Amino acid sequence: MPLFGRRKTTEPEAPAPEAVPLPGAPVAGANGMRSVDDHRDYLLSMVAELPPFRQQLLDVIDLSICEDVVAGLNLPGFDNSAMDGYAVLAADVERASAGEPVVLPVVGEIAAGQAAPHPLAPGTAMKIMTGAPVPEGADAIVPYENTDRGDVDVTIVAASEYGQHIRRVGEDVAAGSVIYRAGDQLGPRDISLLAAMGIDAVMVRPRPRVVVISTGSELAEPGYLRESEHQIYDSNSFLLAAACRAAGAQVYRVGRVGDDPDAVKEVITDQLIRADLILTTGGVSQGDYDVIKQVMPELGRTDFAAVAMQPGKPQGFGLIGEDEVPIIMMPGNPVSAFVSFEVFVRPVLRKMMGSTPYVRTELHCRAAHAMPSIVGKRQFARGHVSVGEDGHRQVSLVGGHGSHLLGDLARANALVVLPEDTDLVGVGDEVSVWMLADHH
Amino acid sequence: MPLFGRRKTTEPEAPAPEAVPLPGAPVAGANGMRSVDDHRDYLLSMVAELPPFRQQLLDVIDLSICEDVVAGLNLPGFDNSAMDGYAVLAADVERASAGEPVVLPVVGEIAAGQAAPHPLAPGTAMKIMTGAPVPEGADAIVPYENTDRGDVDVTIVAASEYGQHIRRVGEDVAAGSVIYRAGDQLGPRDISLLAAMGIDAVMVRPRPRVVVISTGSELAEPGYLRESEHQIYDSNSFLLAAACRAAGAQVYRVGRVGDDPDAVKEVITDQLIRADLILTTGGVSQGDYDVIKQVMPELGRTDFAAVAMQPGKPQGFGLIGEDEVPIIMMPGNPVSAFVSFEVFVRPVLRKMMGSTPYVRTELHCRAAHAMPSIVGKRQFARGHVSVGEDGHRQVSLVGGHGSHLLGDLARANALVVLPEDTDLVGVGDEVSVWMLADHH
Repeated sequence: MPLFGRRKTTEPEAPAPEAVPLPGAPVAGANGMRSVDDHRDYLLSMVAELPPFRQQLLDVIDLSICEDVVAGLNLPGFDNSAMDGYAVLAADVERASAGEPVVLPVVGEIAAGQAAPHPLAPGTAMKIMTGAPVPEGADAIVPYENTDRGDVDVTIVAASEYGQHIRRVGEDVAAGSVIYRAGDQLGPRDISLLAAMGIDAVMVRPRPRVVVISTGSELAEPGYLRESEHQIYDSNSFLLAAACRAAGAQVYRVGRVGDDPDAVKEVITDQLIRADLILTTGGVSQGDYDVIKQVMPELGRTDFAAVAMQPGKPQGFGLIGEDEVPIIMMPGNPVSAFVSFEVFVRPVLRKMMGSTPYVRTELHCRAAHAMPSIVGKRQFARGHVSVGEDGHRQVSLVGGHGSHLLGDLARANALVVLPEDTDLVGVGDEVSVWMLADHH
Repeated sequence: MPLFGRRKTTEPEAPAPEAVPLPGAPVAGANGMRSVDDHRDYLLSMVAELPPFRQQLLDVIDLSICEDVVAGLNLPGFDNSAMDGYAVLAADVERASAGEPVVLPVVGEIAAGQAAPHPLAPGTAMKIMTGAPVPEGADAIVPYENTDRGDVDVTIVAASEYGQHIRRVGEDVAAGSVIYRAGDQLGPRDISLLAAMGIDAVMVRPRPRVVVISTGSELAEPGYLRESEHQIYDSNSFLLAAACRAAGAQVYRVGRVGDDPDAVKEVITDQLIRADLILTTGGVSQGDYDVIKQVMPELGRTDFAAVAMQPGKPQGFGLIGEDEVPIIMMPGNPVSAFVSFEVFVRPVLRKMMGSTPYVRTELHCRAAHAMPSIVGKRQFARGHVSVGEDGHRQVSLVGGHGSHLLGDLARANALVVLPEDTDLVGVGDEVSVWMLADHH
């Protein structure tokens, strides 16, 4: 409720509920702030990997397997023909040429999936299809194009050497070899290799179920008219929902709730049943309406901290409800929320899924221009990485520093990570970045 | 049916059905083969972009928008505070310091989403929350940390300059500017920016519905025992289903069908109703059991061609059924199927979705070793790209040339594209690659 006049500072207030702090929270540094790494390590220590179960191959694309897989079969499983043609003894055709063709009787035929009817006797040929097992006694394949494709006798006009066009058992994958290690991420070709091994399901942790809520009475729902021109459209819940989905999570976007403490508590409590993780934005700062910071201690054990980063300094974490569901409470400025997602939420999701590394890999770039930074805080600036004519990556900053600059954020393709001990990165200096997308 | 003895070549055969060829197929070159580019351009000319419709923001992650989007709002929508604090006139606080604080009466309060109760008179302050509109007359914000947070009067211990901590209307995005162009791919930050504009749905082409079928009586279903040791597990339908899904399509994996012509026709006909595209593997070569090549001309207009590439030479395309559903018929070797997917199917899917570029971008690498190639064919070899100490990418070949080497395929992270006019790429020469995945 806005207060349109003066009010006394001595007005009595309801007593704050007894907050139950979380154990083991890292201590702040001399500057009163917790380091980024300490806070991330703390969050990672407070969430567990989700229990794995066996999932069908086509449900695990881009997820990480959490078992080692030993090849149960050779690939190929048996010596087989690489061509449609005739199985022969190489010695029988070694002098074959267009001028002096070799004619052999055709004593049988092998289709893929079938066994040879009998071993191949010297001086004979057996028709064979691609992938069909090479008959005992044969040691080379003459492809159709070097024959007259005869069914009774075959006329062969070119030699095939010993072993030619024969795929040998186990030459691709040997039975007993380890083909996947726990933690490996499974792309389409991996799924295909597992299928070729006869495996139809693998142990994989489920996609975390993430509930996304944005707080703030100023928020309006996209697609609807705003109640006043001073409302803003909720973008954070879309940002986080889409980012979580891109990171592999299953997302429930609850969207915006107002600043009413009871409504916020009710919405969050209602969601606990289907959440492996809850994300909120807004209400964690020093403002008078910072409802999340006010009410969440009533729902569980919480930890609010100032983290030595820019943007994204005010951070909250908790374990709430009977099941102690983890909740990450982020600031409400869109860029702060996005940076908080990248720095804290994405690693937590990856731990839940068992995907390593938890933190994005830093790439090194040359700074295209000088970049001032703040000593004592890790800065995450929006950047655009390009590859110069000399093949080296370079990065420029996109737009301003303001944590409200969503348009600039969308235009960036990287976050530039400026370390705590830096006040200035000079032109051409090496700087670390996280690449955010390939498509910008 | 296998034939275990001799048979006469003169045995009468059922007459082949009258094949209706597709119009406009490119002519083959002097080597009797069609070029890769000609065949791809032909396929792209035969499929249409799917009709777009308006889809909810969270359903379009990674899809391409097919309309230009003009910003309907300024971002920010109004001058607003970047901090929790007090709106003031900069001139009133310009001499404020810890030693000589300035005390101003607090004449109101503005929460985010609300309008100021009245303009700010000189010599007064108004409490203001982050994101709340700056009242008329104010030109600076003093953040809480430079005050005593008073409600009746506020004691200010540091100056704020003109405009400080004020976010200006339109400084991020100006109303009327084009924020997206048709063809742009939408990532999480783009979805967030659209939401901030009040947009809840955008015109996007649907995900193509792709039916995946693998043919071959030698195929067994993963997870089941094989009927004989000469069967192989179906991996192609998993490979293509997963690859299509990774490319953004909606996939129905029908899986394996045998070599029986009537069964193949029935399965494919049954699927037409739900397919924007059908993919098959196997049965397009010169073998005696190449059922796809045999029966598909009965279902519609088809085009079978030898394409000047390795692997993947035998390629089929058709428009089948009443609705002329496109079908791409690929060879059955796993590597051939994968290369065919990358060279032909992925571009076709991207055209259907309106995602540009249709073809993967070629990156340039140094060859880590000599790579022999075949003049007259474009070779697609499996490669592993790494970044050397000098920051340059280099690529080595993974495993052998055989198109059955699925294990090698899974271990690769790139396809090396060796052009038609090359017989040898020397060590250190520049060579083109398609990057396949980030995670290997």
